[in-house]
Amino acid sequence: MAQALTNPKDDFSGWYNEIVYRADLAGQSPVRGCIIVKPYGYEIWEGLKAALDKRFKATGHQNAYFPLFIPEDYLKREAQHVEGFSPELAVVTIGGGKELEERLIVRPTSETIIGEAFSEWIQSYRDLPLLINQWANVVRWEMRTRPFLRTMEFLWQEGHTAHATEADAEAETLQMLDVYADVVINEAAIPVIKGLKSDSERFAGALRTYTIEAMMGDKRALQSGTSHNLGQNFAKAFNIQYLDEGNQRQFCWTTSWGMSWRVIGGIIMTHGDEKGLRLPPRLAPIQVVIVPIYKTPEEQSAVMAAADRLKQALVGADIRVKLDAREETPGFKFNDWEMRGVPLRLEIGPRDVQNNTVVAARRDIPGREGKSFLSQDNIAAQVAALLTHLQANMLAQAAAFRDANIHDVRSYDELKQVIEAGGFARGWWKEDSEAEARIKAETQASHRCYPLEQPGGEGVNFLTGERADRVALFAKAY
Amino acid sequence: MAQALTNPKDDFSGWYNEIVYRADLAGQSPVRGCIIVKPYGYEIWEGLKAALDKRFKATGHQNAYFPLFIPEDYLKREAQHVEGFSPELAVVTIGGGKELEERLIVRPTSETIIGEAFSEWIQSYRDLPLLINQWANVVRWEMRTRPFLRTMEFLWQEGHTAHATEADAEAETLQMLDVYADVVINEAAIPVIKGLKSDSERFAGALRTYTIEAMMGDKRALQSGTSHNLGQNFAKAFNIQYLDEGNQRQFCWTTSWGMSWRVIGGIIMTHGDEKGLRLPPRLAPIQVVIVPIYKTPEEQSAVMAAADRLKQALVGADIRVKLDAREETPGFKFNDWEMRGVPLRLEIGPRDVQNNTVVAARRDIPGREGKSFLSQDNIAAQVAALLTHLQANMLAQAAAFRDANIHDVRSYDELKQVIEAGGFARGWWKEDSEAEARIKAETQASHRCYPLEQPGGEGVNFLTGERADRVALFAKAY
Repeated sequence: MAQALTNPKDDFSGWYNEIVYRADLAGQSPVRGCIIVKPYGYEIWEGLKAALDKRFKATGHQNAYFPLFIPEDYLKREAQHVEGFSPELAVVTIGGGKELEERLIVRPTSETIIGEAFSEWIQSYRDLPLLINQWANVVRWEMRTRPFLRTMEFLWQEGHTAHATEADAEAETLQMLDVYADVVINEAAIPVIKGLKSDSERFAGALRTYTIEAMMGDKRALQSGTSHNLGQNFAKAFNIQYLDEGNQRQFCWTTSWGMSWRVIGGIIMTHGDEKGLRLPPRLAPIQVVIVPIYKTPEEQSAVMAAADRLKQALVGADIRVKLDAREETPGFKFNDWEMRGVPLRLEIGPRDVQNNTVVAARRDIPGREGKSFLSQDNIAAQVAALLTHLQANMLAQAAAFRDANIHDVRSYDELKQVIEAGGFARGWWKEDSEAEARIKAETQASHRCYPLEQPGGEGVNFLTGERADRVALFAKAY
Repeated sequence: MAQALTNPKDDFSGWYNEIVYRADLAGQSPVRGCIIVKPYGYEIWEGLKAALDKRFKATGHQNAYFPLFIPEDYLKREAQHVEGFSPELAVVTIGGGKELEERLIVRPTSETIIGEAFSEWIQSYRDLPLLINQWANVVRWEMRTRPFLRTMEFLWQEGHTAHATEADAEAETLQMLDVYADVVINEAAIPVIKGLKSDSERFAGALRTYTIEAMMGDKRALQSGTSHNLGQNFAKAFNIQYLDEGNQRQFCWTTSWGMSWRVIGGIIMTHGDEKGLRLPPRLAPIQVVIVPIYKTPEEQSAVMAAADRLKQALVGADIRVKLDAREETPGFKFNDWEMRGVPLRLEIGPRDVQNNTVVAARRDIPGREGKSFLSQDNIAAQVAALLTHLQANMLAQAAAFRDANIHDVRSYDELKQVIEAGGFARGWWKEDSEAEARIKAETQASHRCYPLEQPGGEGVNFLTGERADRVALFAKAY
């Protein structure tokens, strides 16, 4: 029998790494800090991609593709940007056997090279808004890496848009934040808090960075997607101008927004349990596994025939189903598919064949409570309904857990207690980078965001005692 | 008025570059040899991707993702492979501000890193066949580059599979060649010849390389996709072994196969004409453009209302349609959409509104012959039928052109005449790398393939006079 999975309560980090490998999501790579995403993990990414891409197109965005390599001097044009990314760069110095005269940066993000292109593409107000998205790999030379959460190379999408007015750019920034929240909440079943980053946490070169923050099973925060209002910073650095209706030259207002395969890490850490992965049905590569149960060859042939009929009925309803016909015990198969997070298991044995039934076992509700008998008639509709319930219940479970672990704090001591015990601390906060740095140094908790939903009114900054008109969330984060 | 497009008969190469930029498929990039693929070009690539991906999955393949960077020593393990790719490599020597101890190669192709992974993933015959595909960017340091056809970085897919027997590997290699031919013929409307590469033209490290070869408008050949039987070369270099049913260790037999955005170049050069691009309906981002024609405001409002109804009817039938409401003359719009290759144009004016008609103009048939009156009733079904005809006709046009330009040759002089005049030369050929090199040096024509469809029997090698049991195609190529 396989070694038991580490209990997440004992060692969340060890448990996470085990799940990545034992659920067959990814493998280690010979290149430090990179991962090999295996088919089962990649299919989750394909689901996320499709969900995002559909929404990008529905909101008028078009995909394009820009070069992997960026001339070194491009990065230097926006001062904060180069400062933010310089320590993380991979540099190509040799090409075709020769030392390069101009070294090439492997893109850590593409604001600069896309900014340069936009300066050519945009001439007049008629060309605005320009709404572009790119699906790409990027490279950031990270020192401490973890599969999906922080890898040297990762897959993501990066949206880049240009607008005539500040208001248009702000509306776009918030629209894409809403798209991210929609996908993460409704596809990945992860509840998120939309918020604004503090000055010290915002993107290098941005005016404002918005974020969606989720709470993981160890009560740490995961920044799951960011949307940046870049103001005119990049437009001025790359000369992105347009002629307005009065024939005057104006600088554009630009935005960028990105979401990566990090969300897969978020799914693992939000939903996983001591038995392994739990996947939300909408993103699960296998939504339903059918496990046949039999002892004799006669039983086997009757059970397999019925199992195959069930499978065909589900396939016909576009439900992603697998019939596990391996020569292993049912117990082995139960464990295996629980580890891999398949949302729903159908068990069928000789008595079920006789009674025209099948046992459904939900991955979101352990033990007997998660089991029910279904009729084999009209199985697809019953399964589809169960999957819908399951998706909603996983979101509800995660939201309940999160809400129980957000605590209001009125003093630094209270914050320390919350962070120590695990959870998000919420308190009145007046923007103060130095005070943030102190909290981070002393408690490891960082300013996650000013939630967009605010209580209103005023309060007292829990650390400094100053008047503040916003609350902020603090937490340890990935 | 815009400058006239270069005539492809005068300067095919100049015409090609102009189309790429004027049809808005791609833009120049600040990095030598790279291109920026603009939304209109990228959408063609998305269509090709979807067509391929669907077929890969239908034949049991799964997508995965492997690192961009390959340790330098991996490439060296398969001797021919490293020899083939060494001159073309981009090398990362600096990461995170420090000189790297082991330099990293930006992947030119992934046989090596995937071979290493396969050696871990495969244990027993039960793990076979292993059928993996990767969508990725790769980098080859090319000296002479052309948009889509030969760029330093390009997007492609690379399939990698492992099998228990040589026969299984060969069947897979040929199956994927068939998939490529199916997509290029039936989606891109480009007729191709399936064939086997000669020894000197095959992939570095392969046992056998199969190809699909197409004829471009200047009668040169374009290799449009290749499928390699790698034998046990990579299995031995990367120790990809399995335990067979008798519990004996065996080396696997592996394959790889790739198709890139080069096919977009093939579409341009197969179908384009003196007016610009011509896109096959199945891959056209815009299949139908509606151009409203009016003079007075009263006419405008009646025409636009009717045009909008037409548009909605087509959208409802999943036809990709654009209503061109710009403030430009109809003539300007006709030229613009002809340049961009939209397969079908619908013109609607005041008289059409009165008569409940619309004029359809096909991009594949110039002038009056390509025009017809349609009723506004049931427009979607009529347009769908026209698009189907159009797709088939573009393939037929290209096939007729190609077939008229393949010539049998019995002597070197005849080959020289064919190559000089333009076209493919087909003649009996006994494998001979030195003779091939001589032909290439003297005529620029290369051995394209031994077509899989052979006349049978025997003949005399047109150059050496030796007996030969196969014919081969020779042509200048991209």
